[in-house]
Amino acid sequence: MSVDEDSITELAVQRWATAHSPRLGELMTALVRHLHAFAREVRLSEDEWAAAIEWPTAAGQTCDDKRQELILTSDVLGLSMLVVQLNNRFSLRATPATVLGPFHIDGSPTAPYGFDMSDGIEGTPLFITGKVTDTEGTPLPGAVLDVWQADADGAYEAQIPEIDEARLRAKYRAREDGTYCIRTIAPRGYAIPMDGPVGDLVRRTDISHFRPAHVHFLLHEPGHRRLVTHLFQEGSAHLASDVVFGTKDALIVRFAERPAGAAPDGTAVDVPHLHAEFDFVLQPG
Amino acid sequence: MSVDEDSITELAVQRWATAHSPRLGELMTALVRHLHAFAREVRLSEDEWAAAIEWPTAAGQTCDDKRQELILTSDVLGLSMLVVQLNNRFSLRATPATVLGPFHIDGSPTAPYGFDMSDGIEGTPLFITGKVTDTEGTPLPGAVLDVWQADADGAYEAQIPEIDEARLRAKYRAREDGTYCIRTIAPRGYAIPMDGPVGDLVRRTDISHFRPAHVHFLLHEPGHRRLVTHLFQEGSAHLASDVVFGTKDALIVRFAERPAGAAPDGTAVDVPHLHAEFDFVLQPG
Repeated sequence: MSVDEDSITELAVQRWATAHSPRLGELMTALVRHLHAFAREVRLSEDEWAAAIEWPTAAGQTCDDKRQELILTSDVLGLSMLVVQLNNRFSLRATPATVLGPFHIDGSPTAPYGFDMSDGIEGTPLFITGKVTDTEGTPLPGAVLDVWQADADGAYEAQIPEIDEARLRAKYRAREDGTYCIRTIAPRGYAIPMDGPVGDLVRRTDISHFRPAHVHFLLHEPGHRRLVTHLFQEGSAHLASDVVFGTKDALIVRFAERPAGAAPDGTAVDVPHLHAEFDFVLQPG
Repeated sequence: MSVDEDSITELAVQRWATAHSPRLGELMTALVRHLHAFAREVRLSEDEWAAAIEWPTAAGQTCDDKRQELILTSDVLGLSMLVVQLNNRFSLRATPATVLGPFHIDGSPTAPYGFDMSDGIEGTPLFITGKVTDTEGTPLPGAVLDVWQADADGAYEAQIPEIDEARLRAKYRAREDGTYCIRTIAPRGYAIPMDGPVGDLVRRTDISHFRPAHVHFLLHEPGHRRLVTHLFQEGSAHLASDVVFGTKDALIVRFAERPAGAAPDGTAVDVPHLHAEFDFVLQPG
């Protein structure tokens, strides 16, 4: 019955293997083995163990209904992006997935083709147009494009107190021919929150705490796999050092500069603006 | 710059290797590798990832100045006991270490030889006597024995609201010949708190959530290694299934039943009582 440095792991694995759900048993026994392997490999000291206890304690206490420090932890450790990769192996023809991030809000309002989701918020007008198709190039009419982004200061709705209507987010639908048109303002790259435990840790490294400028998308259409992705602005700072490891070459898009005049949706726009073109390709679900 | 399932781990390791302190770099890169290896091995789903984020969030939010759910997590996963083992490799002659647990309180009052730290709290009187020596058997006069325990209901001072003086804890000192004598009441085995995230998880397994009856000790003496340990009551329930993996054969002690009459310290005790004898052996520091 006595435990020692050698037997403790096997004993803990045996205990957690009694989980009533086989999958929970699989997860917990693997967790115990990897956690113990980590502690052994680094020969974790008692002071380091105490710090390792304090860290998730503080991170958990930093969370509230608008902030999730544990998702941020997962993001900066590359775990979120690894999980995206593990669960979204796709046809090379399909649009790649990237992280959801902590700022998606359910229930965004439905918006017609060309709707301006910036609703007068200051910034350079940006049109995003293209098609939603399957991997054979067949249009997917009715596909939903749930779009959200930061403003020109890098702030999301979820980070601004006392907002009572949707801000820089909307749900568009592809038309009969698969085309869509979003009107918004150019997003800006931003720093992750640096005033919590993640910030304290990142500051003790040379890791850049910025994300490149991007717009978030969640696409869904019955019969196809849900797609969570971003479009990144070509030439944006921090593309090569995205703190959450979210950048993929296939998601970097030119935000072309256009003079005042005709907008991509045929309406008129009286200031210079940007135009990004991107076709989303969903894989069978 | 693009990440994929294969490159993400190496990229994350490179980033965290930039930590300004070499030891932090070592810890963080090992953490990234083991965390990623876990996710890959179990092919963590996106829903499981979300649950894995929610768990430490809830655990952190359960903590307050009297409760530490993350220590409890470490305990039930066997990590605490592994860290004890890694950091307390000792001469086979020395008393083995076990977990500190979350209930130690600093600054317990100093108590003379034979002092009754139960201070009238209901329970069976228990005397613990013995010597504190080095590994050669030489007495260590003045060695401090910081003692704390649960009451006969299994409750620690830290778990009882609005206590304003020390309850079932005191600091004894070994006398010139190394002997000590503690008077208290018999502790009771107890369940870990089951109303938080750890309880939710343990309930989904066949793991016993009890600890056997024990008294905690923290011994220190200049020139010798600090010793954190317990004495377990021989025959106590749950000795073979201690939920925090703390039991060691060498720490199981007979609580001998004695009739009313002379107490081990030469005083009189007017009820039947228990007597445990144990010699603590400290290793050079």
